[in-house]
Amino acid sequence: MPTAETTATRAKTVIERCRKLARFSEHEGVTTRTFLSQAMRDCHQEIMRWLEPLGIRGQIDAAGNLRALYPAAQPGAPRLLIGSHLDTVPDAGQFDGVLGVVLGVALIEELGGERLPFAIELVGFSEEEGVRFGTPFIGSRALVGRLDEALLNRADKEGVTVRAAIECFGLNPGDIPHAKIERDVLGYLEFHIEQGPVLEELGLSLAAVEAVAGQTKMDLTFLGRAGHAGTTPMHLRRDAIAGAAEWISTVEREAGRIPGLLATVGAVDQKPGVTNVIAGEAQLTLDLRHRDDHTREDAVEKLIELARDIAERRGLSVRVNTRSSQQSIAMDSSLVDHIDEALRRAGCKPHRMVSGAGHDAMILAEKVPAAMIFLRTPGGLSHHPDETVSLEDVAKALEAGFHLLHQLASSPIPHRSNKRA
Amino acid sequence: MPTAETTATRAKTVIERCRKLARFSEHEGVTTRTFLSQAMRDCHQEIMRWLEPLGIRGQIDAAGNLRALYPAAQPGAPRLLIGSHLDTVPDAGQFDGVLGVVLGVALIEELGGERLPFAIELVGFSEEEGVRFGTPFIGSRALVGRLDEALLNRADKEGVTVRAAIECFGLNPGDIPHAKIERDVLGYLEFHIEQGPVLEELGLSLAAVEAVAGQTKMDLTFLGRAGHAGTTPMHLRRDAIAGAAEWISTVEREAGRIPGLLATVGAVDQKPGVTNVIAGEAQLTLDLRHRDDHTREDAVEKLIELARDIAERRGLSVRVNTRSSQQSIAMDSSLVDHIDEALRRAGCKPHRMVSGAGHDAMILAEKVPAAMIFLRTPGGLSHHPDETVSLEDVAKALEAGFHLLHQLASSPIPHRSNKRA
Repeated sequence: MPTAETTATRAKTVIERCRKLARFSEHEGVTTRTFLSQAMRDCHQEIMRWLEPLGIRGQIDAAGNLRALYPAAQPGAPRLLIGSHLDTVPDAGQFDGVLGVVLGVALIEELGGERLPFAIELVGFSEEEGVRFGTPFIGSRALVGRLDEALLNRADKEGVTVRAAIECFGLNPGDIPHAKIERDVLGYLEFHIEQGPVLEELGLSLAAVEAVAGQTKMDLTFLGRAGHAGTTPMHLRRDAIAGAAEWISTVEREAGRIPGLLATVGAVDQKPGVTNVIAGEAQLTLDLRHRDDHTREDAVEKLIELARDIAERRGLSVRVNTRSSQQSIAMDSSLVDHIDEALRRAGCKPHRMVSGAGHDAMILAEKVPAAMIFLRTPGGLSHHPDETVSLEDVAKALEAGFHLLHQLASSPIPHRSNKRA
Repeated sequence: MPTAETTATRAKTVIERCRKLARFSEHEGVTTRTFLSQAMRDCHQEIMRWLEPLGIRGQIDAAGNLRALYPAAQPGAPRLLIGSHLDTVPDAGQFDGVLGVVLGVALIEELGGERLPFAIELVGFSEEEGVRFGTPFIGSRALVGRLDEALLNRADKEGVTVRAAIECFGLNPGDIPHAKIERDVLGYLEFHIEQGPVLEELGLSLAAVEAVAGQTKMDLTFLGRAGHAGTTPMHLRRDAIAGAAEWISTVEREAGRIPGLLATVGAVDQKPGVTNVIAGEAQLTLDLRHRDDHTREDAVEKLIELARDIAERRGLSVRVNTRSSQQSIAMDSSLVDHIDEALRRAGCKPHRMVSGAGHDAMILAEKVPAAMIFLRTPGGLSHHPDETVSLEDVAKALEAGFHLLHQLASSPIPHRSNKRA
């Protein structure tokens, strides 16, 4: 077992490496690294350089994912996937995604050559953010066999398809089926920054993610009657903005009433939208998330009903358009139990949380036991150049990861313990 | 006195003439007639054709206003101005503005050659809507001596100044001082559609306007903290849109509490304004009107205070920018009394109201006793191609106008009975 001092030094290296990868960018001075860009190639090469002294040769699969195998004690043993994504949003932070890959490298280093009863496959996903093609998880979809024709034919703003981007990077789309994981994968582990303020608020370094919340995205439009702001008495108005405002407060109140429900109106638009005219139309977006799908679906129905009540009382009408509805995904309960224990062994108070954001682990969970470890995110700040992590929390993550690997070595997780399929 | 039948026929002509003038437009198929356009010249010529049989020769003053004098019984007698504006908003209705000029012509016709102890000067203002130069009342400002250098130098979107537009129309800006009204003006009377739903709601044809409301226009910005809609628990949010929504409802409630206060939030904008991000900033417009300036100013202060309370409770801050604050303008009380009486004689129930919109009468009131008569506007619809008036209400307006002229003939209004200056 590495000393606290060794782990602290390695944690420092992890942070330095994340900061170094952040310099591989499509744009000078900021971090922007999208699917199969030249910056991504530089990023791959840098990570492969770190793997060389470990005797590991990384390769890029046909979906552009970095994959590198640290062998098991015995040939033919199953493998544990550890990874996260290497792409970023535009003008990104330095830790979202890459931290999970860099921690994977560090964990292998931390083993100091020790072989486990399972191999470790490091995975650096090529695409998770959905920036270039408007569809996220291109990398992890390949591992579960869902990088299909429709997605391959999807084009970016320049008209370049996913397929063409793959070819242009020197890869062969025909090999995509080989990127798919086989029956020998015993699980997937992803370290990721929380990207929210919860752990900081609780004073905790780490948490096990037990589920990724389901989410509904919808547009809701209140329709009233435009009118002159100076000639229409208050009682004769059918003000769409006033109705919308009442509903926004209702949404906030309902979300406060239902534990774990996250409800956000992120945008309001109106017609005609000028100072001296009562709005005849107000359109709102709603983003609703909860770990329990029934709770979320009930909340959607309730909020629509409340919108109709508000509209009726005000002589407005309301139009609802559901843009997407995505089910909640449970992480593997046995793996989450193991994470709890690993956190305890690392001197952390075990804590479980629901991820409100989507992650590659959610895609991998379709096929294999998957779980995540969140690291505290100072200020909850993410997708921003000031995004950071503390040295202490990275050291705790390394320590917990080290314990987790050894727990899994002595007490393997049941195969696909809680999968639906 | 004209028979009811004559008046009804004349009312029909008034409506036909308004519809005819609506065809003089800068754009085919819609009515758009801005300051000193070719359409305005056609409009002038048409009105002058109607005046010819009455022996009246109209002319265009240096500010582009149509002016036509119907002489008094005696030379040297004072004059009563009757008019409104001839310009329109883009894609306008057929009655806003022109109705007041066309009714002026009809009233002179209604006199059937009878001479009064005062002359009637018909005025068709060149500019009231502020469309072309972003500044309204260019025409009426000339009559009160406020078409100054700054305004003359103001340019439209094509860079053409007010001065150049005047020259281009064949007029001489040097003659603008001659457009100013002299001491011989005993008052100004303006017929105008209400442009709101009040008279329709009350079942009344006409009303006397006793004041033009003062108004405040401001922008108010709530500043919070942008955050991920999926990772930020409700209790840790500083959601600018939620704060803004609470304030919009507060504005509505306060306006309901203070009789006569009109308060409108016509536009909401936010940053970043996407579905899955809690807004860090929400900007609102506020339009506040009341006939009593103190009431309005107190309401402004109260609403800002309430915004600060909301912001404080929510961990937001608030930024206030007052764009304009315009005092209320009282109409001439004696002239308004006369209108009440004229309405009564025309078989209408006298009703007084405050105009929430600005009108040329407000500008003229700076110098001479001024008042307005509002005509019911079906559906309150104005600045819209479907804007209309009823034949019955136009006939009532003619009848009331006829009575008013004779009342003024026998009992003149005190000179500048309630002017401030």
